[in-house]
Amino acid sequence: MPTTLSHPSSRRERRSIELRERLFRAAIQLFARKGFAETTVEDITNAADVGKGTFFNYFPSKEHILGAFGRLQISKVQAAADAAPSTRLPIQTFLRNLAFDVISKPAQNPAVVRALLQANLSSEPVRETMREIHGMATALLARIIEVGQQRGEIRKDLAANDIAPVLRQSLLGAMLIWSLYGDGSLESRIENVFKVLWNGMAAHVELPRSAVSPEEGKSR
Amino acid sequence: MPTTLSHPSSRRERRSIELRERLFRAAIQLFARKGFAETTVEDITNAADVGKGTFFNYFPSKEHILGAFGRLQISKVQAAADAAPSTRLPIQTFLRNLAFDVISKPAQNPAVVRALLQANLSSEPVRETMREIHGMATALLARIIEVGQQRGEIRKDLAANDIAPVLRQSLLGAMLIWSLYGDGSLESRIENVFKVLWNGMAAHVELPRSAVSPEEGKSR
Repeated sequence: MPTTLSHPSSRRERRSIELRERLFRAAIQLFARKGFAETTVEDITNAADVGKGTFFNYFPSKEHILGAFGRLQISKVQAAADAAPSTRLPIQTFLRNLAFDVISKPAQNPAVVRALLQANLSSEPVRETMREIHGMATALLARIIEVGQQRGEIRKDLAANDIAPVLRQSLLGAMLIWSLYGDGSLESRIENVFKVLWNGMAAHVELPRSAVSPEEGKSR
Repeated sequence: MPTTLSHPSSRRERRSIELRERLFRAAIQLFARKGFAETTVEDITNAADVGKGTFFNYFPSKEHILGAFGRLQISKVQAAADAAPSTRLPIQTFLRNLAFDVISKPAQNPAVVRALLQANLSSEPVRETMREIHGMATALLARIIEVGQQRGEIRKDLAANDIAPVLRQSLLGAMLIWSLYGDGSLESRIENVFKVLWNGMAAHVELPRSAVSPEEGKSR
């Protein structure tokens, strides 16, 4: 889709954005209630109170709804990656704030999270979309981690590309387990991920010298 | 089921164990190929080449197959928790070995992992089983972590019960993402979880004093 004005000027544009969002929300709620596979396009258009054909003006397929949800989350990570180089916050705080921002929507509905995780695993086209989104999210996280490394706040003996997937997997794992319970534990789970992941599990930390000053490693 | 002899003495017992395993394997393969919801008990008994009624001599329902898979994995964690107090290995190595042992089976088949994760999320009875298994696994991991804390190898400023879920979620998240790709990356993902989780992400580690010697915290 070509880029449109960021402030929709005409009524028709506003209406179009409003309709797309209505379809999106109806779909996510149905996925949560009935499951992704069991939800038809007709279910979605019925729930959104629009004609069936309207759906395809906004989404080529049901799978694209999941892609849109993923991209909605990605846009927050993208904005954070752009802002990271100029943030005055410690990178730990910056990453923690980002995590809480990204989970704020899913945290409202464990059934949606379950439906999304479930759908992600179901069919090859959806997995293709998920791999794309996962790759983007991890690359963006790696950029933020690099900023932390440049500032001397994050260890440098491991590549940002090796650290980023571990952080992302830990957060995703927390979401997965939480969604089985659907209780109020998501925030404390995320908090604990940061507590443990930031300082590690070891009592006596013996980082290689290169973790703090990588130049010495390079100059040998 | 009452405990049977660990070395089945009679031919009938061996045959019974063999049949149960055949049903179990056929089911897991079908879940992977067709999906959990789409697999019927008849599909399973057909694939295992036994009469339909035979299934229910071994498993009260399809869901119980997943429970059996979970308990198979749990039994490895149980054995490790029992062995931990007397191991001569550093606890980091001990935990790493356990993780590789537990993933060795699932690693052979990403489709099975996807099917299991998917099924876990699908229906309330299955989630109930999963919560049980998850709770058991996390409690057992916490016992191993406590051994590490007693030996001064794992930080003591956090409770074992707070550290254990983070480790488990990180490993589960690695499985989840890997299962989207189904490539050869699972082992290096797990390796990286330990690399990052053990020493943490921070360059300059400033653990509270209680992390190393908790007695000082107590005596105040």
